[in-house]
Amino acid sequence: MAKKYEYLLDISGPEFIKDFTIDQMEILASDIRQFLIETLSKTGGHVAPNLGVVELTLALHYVFDSPIDKLIFDVGHQCYIHKILTGRANQFEQLRQYQGLSGFPRLEESIHDAFETGHSSTSLSAAMGMAVARDLRGEQHHIIPIIGDGALTGGMALEALNHIGDEQRPMVIVLNDNEMSISKPVGAINRQLEAIRVNKNYAQAKQVFRSALESIPVVGDSLATTAERVKTRAKRAIVTSEESNLFDALGILYLGPIDGHNFHDLISAFQLAKQVNRPVVVHVMTQKGRGYLPAQSDERGSWHGIGSFDLETGRKHHKKANYDDRVWSCIVSQTLERFAEKDKRLVAITPAMIKGSKLEFFQKKFPDQTYDVGIAEQHAATFAGGLAISGMKPVYFVYSTFLQRAYDQVIHDLARQKLDVVIAVDRCGFATGDGDTHHGIYDISFLRAIPELTIVMPKDQIEAQHLFYSVLYEYEGKGTIAYRYPRGYTTYTPIQLFEPIPYGSWTIERNGKDATVITFGPMVAKALAYAAVLAESGIELQVVNARFIKPMDEKMLTRILAIQKPVFTIEEGSVVGGFGSAVAQWNNQYQYQCPLHMFGIDDTYHAQGDSVSLFEESGLGDAHIIETIKEMVK
Amino acid sequence: MAKKYEYLLDISGPEFIKDFTIDQMEILASDIRQFLIETLSKTGGHVAPNLGVVELTLALHYVFDSPIDKLIFDVGHQCYIHKILTGRANQFEQLRQYQGLSGFPRLEESIHDAFETGHSSTSLSAAMGMAVARDLRGEQHHIIPIIGDGALTGGMALEALNHIGDEQRPMVIVLNDNEMSISKPVGAINRQLEAIRVNKNYAQAKQVFRSALESIPVVGDSLATTAERVKTRAKRAIVTSEESNLFDALGILYLGPIDGHNFHDLISAFQLAKQVNRPVVVHVMTQKGRGYLPAQSDERGSWHGIGSFDLETGRKHHKKANYDDRVWSCIVSQTLERFAEKDKRLVAITPAMIKGSKLEFFQKKFPDQTYDVGIAEQHAATFAGGLAISGMKPVYFVYSTFLQRAYDQVIHDLARQKLDVVIAVDRCGFATGDGDTHHGIYDISFLRAIPELTIVMPKDQIEAQHLFYSVLYEYEGKGTIAYRYPRGYTTYTPIQLFEPIPYGSWTIERNGKDATVITFGPMVAKALAYAAVLAESGIELQVVNARFIKPMDEKMLTRILAIQKPVFTIEEGSVVGGFGSAVAQWNNQYQYQCPLHMFGIDDTYHAQGDSVSLFEESGLGDAHIIETIKEMVK
Repeated sequence: MAKKYEYLLDISGPEFIKDFTIDQMEILASDIRQFLIETLSKTGGHVAPNLGVVELTLALHYVFDSPIDKLIFDVGHQCYIHKILTGRANQFEQLRQYQGLSGFPRLEESIHDAFETGHSSTSLSAAMGMAVARDLRGEQHHIIPIIGDGALTGGMALEALNHIGDEQRPMVIVLNDNEMSISKPVGAINRQLEAIRVNKNYAQAKQVFRSALESIPVVGDSLATTAERVKTRAKRAIVTSEESNLFDALGILYLGPIDGHNFHDLISAFQLAKQVNRPVVVHVMTQKGRGYLPAQSDERGSWHGIGSFDLETGRKHHKKANYDDRVWSCIVSQTLERFAEKDKRLVAITPAMIKGSKLEFFQKKFPDQTYDVGIAEQHAATFAGGLAISGMKPVYFVYSTFLQRAYDQVIHDLARQKLDVVIAVDRCGFATGDGDTHHGIYDISFLRAIPELTIVMPKDQIEAQHLFYSVLYEYEGKGTIAYRYPRGYTTYTPIQLFEPIPYGSWTIERNGKDATVITFGPMVAKALAYAAVLAESGIELQVVNARFIKPMDEKMLTRILAIQKPVFTIEEGSVVGGFGSAVAQWNNQYQYQCPLHMFGIDDTYHAQGDSVSLFEESGLGDAHIIETIKEMVK
Repeated sequence: MAKKYEYLLDISGPEFIKDFTIDQMEILASDIRQFLIETLSKTGGHVAPNLGVVELTLALHYVFDSPIDKLIFDVGHQCYIHKILTGRANQFEQLRQYQGLSGFPRLEESIHDAFETGHSSTSLSAAMGMAVARDLRGEQHHIIPIIGDGALTGGMALEALNHIGDEQRPMVIVLNDNEMSISKPVGAINRQLEAIRVNKNYAQAKQVFRSALESIPVVGDSLATTAERVKTRAKRAIVTSEESNLFDALGILYLGPIDGHNFHDLISAFQLAKQVNRPVVVHVMTQKGRGYLPAQSDERGSWHGIGSFDLETGRKHHKKANYDDRVWSCIVSQTLERFAEKDKRLVAITPAMIKGSKLEFFQKKFPDQTYDVGIAEQHAATFAGGLAISGMKPVYFVYSTFLQRAYDQVIHDLARQKLDVVIAVDRCGFATGDGDTHHGIYDISFLRAIPELTIVMPKDQIEAQHLFYSVLYEYEGKGTIAYRYPRGYTTYTPIQLFEPIPYGSWTIERNGKDATVITFGPMVAKALAYAAVLAESGIELQVVNARFIKPMDEKMLTRILAIQKPVFTIEEGSVVGGFGSAVAQWNNQYQYQCPLHMFGIDDTYHAQGDSVSLFEESGLGDAHIIETIKEMVK
């Protein structure tokens, strides 16, 4: 049965909308929403962010000429409408699937994807590079970074604004401002925007601006003839808040706020901005989840990035094995909660990931002990250092992939000063649907090089609790500790008595005389499963839980290597410089010459996909591991 | 012969100045300048920055009560006066020497050093952590980060300002504003400050402010009685520039500009700021090099951090072997200059290191092809990405230690997109006098984990030129390349004909049947020297130049390992996850079981010192290496 939006599948490029009237745009917007909601209910994806930018994206493609003009979507997960308009609607059934359509801009997918994004706050820097290149090459096109209000607090975005304001090269910065980022945006910059939004002159200013816009003949009109008129009118139309304006201060022209769901205003504003021969910010107010009631009325931001859901009710299909299972983040935040009852020194820090790190309840219960610093991974790390040096016990919650942003701070400010900061490294391992921008697979390699930094990972939820307790209370004075845990679900049984885990200790989970697997985290359970399979072939595998990735249990490692039976390391992380490499260095440096094979993620990039596919693709497939062990033991 | 400033050596703490009159402060300032100039002429050090903050530091210690109040020196190299006042003047003869006084704040040196610094822009984040801790613990003290105008453009400083403005916790931010940072500060934020400086109301405002200050009885007066008066006057005294003010916009009270060499104004301003129950910026204008003519009149910033010099003439004692020798940075920038003559696609990018990276002449010659983006390592990287994707050939000049700041951008924006960006990684290896905040010894470990990133290092200046040519023109399409080089001097003979170096190739520098040393960079020459010594004991060493650290020359490596003679890797970088670890992984993964020993910097921190001491301390001493090789070969 043909759906009314089926024609979207045939759109081959943005020229499709170039002759549209506003009425036609409205219909298209409505059809795109319908298409998105129905498709995403099956595949999951970033529902709310994309529903919020339907009119915005259409207006951008109407006014600018991609791919000559460059649209750069900061963070990138709000690029679905852009993908639909650039000939990719027919791939949405495979959105975020293995070998399917990426949920982010991809160079290889389309010439309309000007720069790949994923992490926040990169678009302005990329745009600045493109602007300099354009000018040096004597080209004339427009460069349009589209950045959210949350992403604006990221340090590199501010570094870029500083440069952009200085160089004054033309660029249209679209500030996509909604009050619902991944978490609610925080900080003084957001207050600035808030001030603009609620300014007592806002309504009035909006009216002035609107009249100015309305008097510009826009849609269907030849701009060439009106360019001059537009220019003189530009000044009048600029709305400057009563409060001093951050953008003014940085020498960037400010234009707004614009109703992000009004085609006339959007198109007029972009046409105006196009004429300005210097950097200009167009401040667009959008509503996340627009047009789909469950997502629209969602205060908690739980419609940000999601799995499949029921179209009618908006009820999400859970992927948990059992209803009572929790995401790993819950285990950690709830364990922290138990200690925070009695210990006022405990402080949770998150760079705009209250929800993702499952700190909502913690924050409600301990508002004074919770600090959401906005998208500011660097600041968050050194902020934790300032707390630690003052006698507090900070826990810095951060995804493995975002910890890359705070690498220097972890070395320079935390580990080097031996400050007792716990880094709760969340989402370790493959990011599945998000793909290569988000995989948390480098942290062991980059953290291991830092002297006097401890790296641990629990094998299961019970050990997670004991280990988190130990990290907080048994290893005081040991300096900075990275406590890793994966994404996904696990059971949760709050333990009654927290037991100390000896610092630097490994455990033997299974005895076996023929070979040893050393691994950690959820891979321990996998290794036990391999052992069971191999036992059927008469191979008895010893399985070691290396819950201390650094420092290693050198006594146990020495014993294992000395036996001279094959040793295998397995890790869901880069094989380059990872845990296996530590074992290899030990094996060589002390001349054990023990047969050793390292399983880890091979040294290349892996796009999005399900765990099984990604494990297989990267050299961690079950069959491959079992076969390799068999061969080496023989 | 006793010098007139000899009493400085007996100062045990800041209480020394608490009862001083302004006249006494003036004398002390003058004596400190004399002491600094004479001492630093022998030891070298950060001359100009410290001469600029004599009055500022004295005024801070006069008004605030360290160590209860926390002084945090951003970057840290301007802490000499603080060190003198806190009982360390008698250690200045060993300043920046091995096991001597650090040139930066050190926790172990003094309770007055509240937080260690070295890299730029960290102080505000640390201060914010301390402020939250203070408030949660119900304490009352003051927190005073002292940050330069250059450091203010660092992303993490801006992230921190956003958080500080949001939380509104009391804090006195001292903005030490001089027009001579390490390089001239750039960017819109600096323009902001410039606008304040040259504002047509500046003189008038200064007068208003000055009257306000003068009517406050400050020095020797009881503040308790005047607190209320001060508070009401505070508002009047706040000078807001005509232009919109960045700090206002972020919700931070702005106070200034203050003459940084006028004790009365400084003390009054700090006493005022002390009373303000919210974050306040005190904008202090200082002159670098103040009081020493050669440093004061130095436009090029060459008195920033220097070696020893002649006291009378200000002429610097060179450490070069020959007068014609150049620092390594010169070889690279001058080679780039040769190509830039013909190739307009080449663009040099530096995060505020024009001088350090020896780009002054390049900038003069190719102003359109040189981009100093300010202290903004993250932005610089992705800016380079934007240029590369637009068909330019960007070279990002950055010190190894500062590249840590752009780690995520190198992974996420450059290498992952396979963009042809050359990262010229300067100052690889020990930073000697600067110490552990600045050693460039982690980059191989953290870069090696990045897929599809190439890492190279030339063994000498001739190879440096061929390799740099190859990186620019022979390896196009290979993606992002880290081109490493060390600090220090070398000869420079511009080559006539640039020859391509085959991608991924190593060379044998010396044949030898008993063992193989694999190394790279200037360590190749060292290895050849070891070989000569060992030859006397009848050991014939093969020496391999592994100019490709990644990818390795797998064919050659395989041949070497297959011979089963002892193999040694040597690197001036962390042994953890470094080049040697790559060889170890290969040796194990393919079951060569070749005897292998990795020489590299051991897994701990090393403070400042001369190369020889640091090499010995870290496991790279010549005798140790030679002995170890001898033993393993036997």
